Amino acid sequence: MFEVLFEHIDKKITLTKEEENKLTPFFIPKKYRKRQYVLQQGDICKYIAFVEKGMLRSFQVDDKGNEHVIQFAPEGWWIADNYSFLTGSPSSYDIDVLEDAEVLLITQTALEEMLQAIPVMERYMRILMQNSLISMQNRIACTLGSNAEERYQGVLKALPNIAQRVPQHMLASFLGITPETLSRVRRQLLKNS
Amino acid sequence: MFEVLFEHIDKKITLTKEEENKLTPFFIPKKYRKRQYVLQQGDICKYIAFVEKGMLRSFQVDDKGNEHVIQFAPEGWWIADNYSFLTGSPSSYDIDVLEDAEVLLITQTALEEMLQAIPVMERYMRILMQNSLISMQNRIACTLGSNAEERYQGVLKALPNIAQRVPQHMLASFLGITPETLSRVRRQLLKNS
Repeated sequence: MFEVLFEHIDKKITLTKEEENKLTPFFIPKKYRKRQYVLQQGDICKYIAFVEKGMLRSFQVDDKGNEHVIQFAPEGWWIADNYSFLTGSPSSYDIDVLEDAEVLLITQTALEEMLQAIPVMERYMRILMQNSLISMQNRIACTLGSNAEERYQGVLKALPNIAQRVPQHMLASFLGITPETLSRVRRQLLKNS
Repeated sequence: MFEVLFEHIDKKITLTKEEENKLTPFFIPKKYRKRQYVLQQGDICKYIAFVEKGMLRSFQVDDKGNEHVIQFAPEGWWIADNYSFLTGSPSSYDIDVLEDAEVLLITQTALEEMLQAIPVMERYMRILMQNSLISMQNRIACTLGSNAEERYQGVLKALPNIAQRVPQHMLASFLGITPETLSRVRRQLLKNS
């Protein structure tokens, strides 16, 4: 169950076998079925989740009932409402399951204890936080400054097979464009390839 | 020159005297005069800056030439274009000096070396990154969800004497409101106090 997490950690820091064994009890392994919710808007985000298998998604529902996809998290990705998790305030979005999933959950208390027990994990968490910050700023800059084609290509770079794994309307929502624009962009790219 | 930085670090982690002595050579102390630039849009943000004295500000200039204040950084605050600093891409904003300032600069290479030399600083940096993430999400949520009065009160909580230290039009810009609205909000709060 911890294979993908250890792989992910191993790209950034080196854990001894002993540290790996110390690490696992801080996590709660959990299975989710497609369409289940991991977090619902208004609840406090008690866990950050690492996806070992399957796919999760975070999204926001606006006043008119339209869904806006914030993040796709396939295997090897972390997902949470960081703000709610870190501050204890109610979450402003939902996290649900797009493909049957196996995830590793960790609470804030367990995370803090884990960092005390395995100090080298501070580095891993620092890099994670740093990457969240980068992708958040990138997301804002992209929404403001890039066209649909650039945004689509950016997503394919981060999530190569995303177009095969999620419905087109969700991918369009993530890109902040209409499904029609997404179809046009995809046709255009196929023509040019 | 390092008093305020050590105070800031001390709130989050404990450094030995030896670690403190190891820390200082990684920083470049620098003095700036009011109106000088620390970073200009389009340049790569090579340093993150810790303000020991005075005040810095980051801002963006839109196509119409209007300034939008992103952050005020008085003594005890860090400031940078994190995205540009971490990714090496051109900065999308400027950082200038609002009050004669003494700052401590650190490059990405020096930061990485410092973290190798003093591993406990990973924890400090992780907390910094985490707080940047929180304040960024907060900033977005506030701009979308709060009224002018709530936003003004939020800023006063983080920066108690900001209204006495920066011109009103900059404070209004930071809040995303007109100077007229800011005047109205301040009169209203005085009446109610």
